Amino acid sequence: MNETTKPDAVAQMRDWWRTEIIEMKPGVIRFRGYAIEDLIGQVTFPQMIWLMLRGELPAPAQAKLLDAALMSGVDHGPQAPSIAIARMAATCGVGLNNAMASAVNVLGDVHGGAGEQAVLLYDDVQSRIDAGADARAATEAGLADFVAQHGKIIPGFGHRFHPVDPRSPRLLALVDAAAAAGVVSGKYARIAREIESVLLAQKGKGIPMNIDGATAVIYAELGFPAPLARGLFCLSRSVGILAHAWEQTQQGGRNKGPIPRQYVPTYDGPAPRPVPSQ
Amino acid sequence: MNETTKPDAVAQMRDWWRTEIIEMKPGVIRFRGYAIEDLIGQVTFPQMIWLMLRGELPAPAQAKLLDAALMSGVDHGPQAPSIAIARMAATCGVGLNNAMASAVNVLGDVHGGAGEQAVLLYDDVQSRIDAGADARAATEAGLADFVAQHGKIIPGFGHRFHPVDPRSPRLLALVDAAAAAGVVSGKYARIAREIESVLLAQKGKGIPMNIDGATAVIYAELGFPAPLARGLFCLSRSVGILAHAWEQTQQGGRNKGPIPRQYVPTYDGPAPRPVPSQ
Amino acid sequence: MNETTKPDAVAQMRDWWRTEIIEMKPGVIRFRGYAIEDLIGQVTFPQMIWLMLRGELPAPAQAKLLDAALMSGVDHGPQAPSIAIARMAATCGVGLNNAMASAVNVLGDVHGGAGEQAVLLYDDVQSRIDAGADARAATEAGLADFVAQHGKIIPGFGHRFHPVDPRSPRLLALVDAAAAAGVVSGKYARIAREIESVLLAQKGKGIPMNIDGATAVIYAELGFPAPLARGLFCLSRSVGILAHAWEQTQQGGRNKGPIPRQYVPTYDGPAPRPVPSQ
Amino acid sequence: MNETTKPDAVAQMRDWWRTEIIEMKPGVIRFRGYAIEDLIGQVTFPQMIWLMLRGELPAPAQAKLLDAALMSGVDHGPQAPSIAIARMAATCGVGLNNAMASAVNVLGDVHGGAGEQAVLLYDDVQSRIDAGADARAATEAGLADFVAQHGKIIPGFGHRFHPVDPRSPRLLALVDAAAAAGVVSGKYARIAREIESVLLAQKGKGIPMNIDGATAVIYAELGFPAPLARGLFCLSRSVGILAHAWEQTQQGGRNKGPIPRQYVPTYDGPAPRPVPSQ
Repeated sequence: MNETTKPDAVAQMRDWWRTEIIEMKPGVIRFRGYAIEDLIGQVTFPQMIWLMLRGELPAPAQAKLLDAALMSGVDHGPQAPSIAIARMAATCGVGLNNAMASAVNVLGDVHGGAGEQAVLLYDDVQSRIDAGADARAATEAGLADFVAQHGKIIPGFGHRFHPVDPRSPRLLALVDAAAAAGVVSGKYARIAREIESVLLAQKGKGIPMNIDGATAVIYAELGFPAPLARGLFCLSRSVGILAHAWEQTQQGGRNKGPIPRQYVPTYDGPAPRPVPSQ
Repeated sequence: MNETTKPDAVAQMRDWWRTEIIEMKPGVIRFRGYAIEDLIGQVTFPQMIWLMLRGELPAPAQAKLLDAALMSGVDHGPQAPSIAIARMAATCGVGLNNAMASAVNVLGDVHGGAGEQAVLLYDDVQSRIDAGADARAATEAGLADFVAQHGKIIPGFGHRFHPVDPRSPRLLALVDAAAAAGVVSGKYARIAREIESVLLAQKGKGIPMNIDGATAVIYAELGFPAPLARGLFCLSRSVGILAHAWEQTQQGGRNKGPIPRQYVPTYDGPAPRPVPSQ
Repeated sequence: MNETTKPDAVAQMRDWWRTEIIEMKPGVIRFRGYAIEDLIGQVTFPQMIWLMLRGELPAPAQAKLLDAALMSGVDHGPQAPSIAIARMAATCGVGLNNAMASAVNVLGDVHGGAGEQAVLLYDDVQSRIDAGADARAATEAGLADFVAQHGKIIPGFGHRFHPVDPRSPRLLALVDAAAAAGVVSGKYARIAREIESVLLAQKGKGIPMNIDGATAVIYAELGFPAPLARGLFCLSRSVGILAHAWEQTQQGGRNKGPIPRQYVPTYDGPAPRPVPSQ
Repeated sequence: MNETTKPDAVAQMRDWWRTEIIEMKPGVIRFRGYAIEDLIGQVTFPQMIWLMLRGELPAPAQAKLLDAALMSGVDHGPQAPSIAIARMAATCGVGLNNAMASAVNVLGDVHGGAGEQAVLLYDDVQSRIDAGADARAATEAGLADFVAQHGKIIPGFGHRFHPVDPRSPRLLALVDAAAAAGVVSGKYARIAREIESVLLAQKGKGIPMNIDGATAVIYAELGFPAPLARGLFCLSRSVGILAHAWEQTQQGGRNKGPIPRQYVPTYDGPAPRPVPSQ
């Protein structure tokens, strides 16, 4: 708590906010060592996302897979809380940035976390394979452990709405092509399919891979740590959030509630009663 | 951009975050000069709110009026976007703090700004009275100017749901009692009632004062600047937001959408079409 | 997915948003059965907070304890991330509601969750006492379990800044008085003091109860479930957040960064390098 | 308020959330008429952003310009409030989605709105040219009007830190190339350069185009409405926000304040004083 000026006070301040991402000097902006004026026109938006998060530029084929994962998850309609919130916010007299914030904010463990959890599940199965288990046994053990710890909802598999998620087979086909070309190993695609197979055997009906399961395959194949699966989903879904907030802005409306005003919510609490004297 | 240590570097840092609200030293916390250990047990939560925002403690009768404004606006049901958002967020796997943030965030110009705008309208009418206009003429001129600048929705008056807002007469009665006791002037209550009267004469039907109009009277009588009418509403509505987020947490549910899942939103866009080759 | 009108479609919609908190009809607003016009002027803001969260009105002495917990935690200065964020947001061209949202949002497990965790810790110790352990043994076992599961930071005890937190003794004195008057049991105050005593014995130096530990005693004594300790802290800290956002608004500034502009953060990443051709 | 089931209740519900963006049926997801399985692998992330916001797919050369605008604005270092907030939030025990939300939320009129305002300024100058003014006169008149209405800070021009913003010339070079190829008109690039020229003449020193001014040229050339300039900036900056939140997560820390804990903010308020008796 010594408030005397110490010789290193400025150095302490600068270090408090130290970063390996961006270097700033007057007239100079470098990302991970690359001058911004060199990056512009050379490097695509998905490549830039990779550079910012990973520290190095991806190979073009890696960037293409990342691109597919990002573009495929932008939106799943106004039934999703995030999209509904964006639309409601857009009628409340706040900016698009605010509508986006309220919406991205709810991409939590349940709404936006399945991709992250799926990567962790895949990693767990892979570590069992690395330790010598065969794929089937490793998958069964990984699933059993997951259910014991987290309950019966398997992240990345099954959908309340779609019997088959039309996005998953296409994304997996891209992974297969990339694996065939040596861009990725393909081992996470195999694990995800093994999980589908085990779930089918255990439940007697298909619990097919959904968008979270399929993008998690891509993120895991590309070497992203699990928490970034959520982060990347937030970037992706931000596009749908923005598009719906903007569409609602153009449709107009003020204080859009979740249901039209004539459908008053059911009240289930105590009957009318007087306030007791204090 | 001189990065040499300057004698005043620490002073600059400390001044960058200077405040008149709170003084911190090890073992010492003072708000506006009052030691926290002296305030605790002596000063109520509404009095503390006043102290934090205004710099001095209120008289008890002033604090009582502020208390009434705060307690009266806590909630208006799940049809309000803020409350619906809190409930939806609570099913997405985020904390109560996050659910509160997404919800408070949408208390923007349309959803949470009416109180602030009403204070500005009252101030405008009052300044016309101060300049010599009689109350009726000042109110008519103030309303006409407001409509010309902002459109026909008068902040603080009328309600899509309630023909009469049951909160307003009670709050105004408290203001009247405070005015009779010399706690406040009562001039903003007069202006608000004059606005009701002018709107009735102009529209041929009642556009009665709503909760925003009534709490704006209290905030204006108590001398709060207009933007704090919104800030205080945010504090007040945070209570309902928290209560609904908590009730939803206890009800359970995952990814609660705005309508039950079987009611798929209408799609109004282009018919199915193939992706053109790029 | 049957989209035909079913006789119960409206009932389903209404039930989707059912609540026990608020009943709305045109001209009618009741909270937990109490008409708002009866509550206004009779019930204080802290009493209303209790009613909203608990379903019944508190006794006045209970409300007084809640009030003290709420007023004591409003602010801990701009070194806290929540307060700093509020001030920075206020310079970015967003509303006070938005500044409050960005700030309340970060009252997460680390910044705002200590009260919730402390209630859980107290409950655990109490359940050991209920099972027959003496207070010392129950406390030692509870602490040992907590450290094993969550690490060595004990929620509600110790402070990086204050050797003694001036708020805690005052809040505990209020709890003692309420216990003496039969308002609360006092058992959570005993547990919290036992924790202090055990920590002192184990560490050889005081790790005194801080604001989170002391307010957690109050919330636990009053019967609030642990997650509401965080929720109530969010309400309380929202006051300081608003006050600092407002003070910053009046001070002015544009895009206030964390440190003055002349102190450029340290860059630790790769040295300048050319972008490889793609 | 008629709560009887009406034949159209379900239709009303579905229409309440109608959209032209996404069509959902079990097993079917179409965006603007395109099946998602056809889009995946065919359409890049920037093309998808365009489709979501504009309703039609862009030509590849249009998408390339959009891509450059998006990748160039991802980050400007921890001195920016948005980035600092993301880093602070990451130490508070919240998810990456929450850290992103608190940060994106502050991209308001001052911090994130310059691009939007620049598009409006360019449009205003262009409308004067369309009405017959020459470029110089239109620009001078547009600037004069802007300053009269909004003050002397011209959105998109000048920088507190960079004498020349290294991003702008590169982005304008891409616009020039696109104009030469007939992809865009180039008229907004001309206006932006005319603004630079007028400002230089008026101020006697360069107030060069910054990143907001340059990306606004691209967005205007591509036909995006002004509010989407802000929305697109939010998407772009979300990348830097995520990257810094993630870097901070890896660096660790708890409750990171804006300055190291030893630099206590200056307190400027009242001297210590006793609480008056109530």
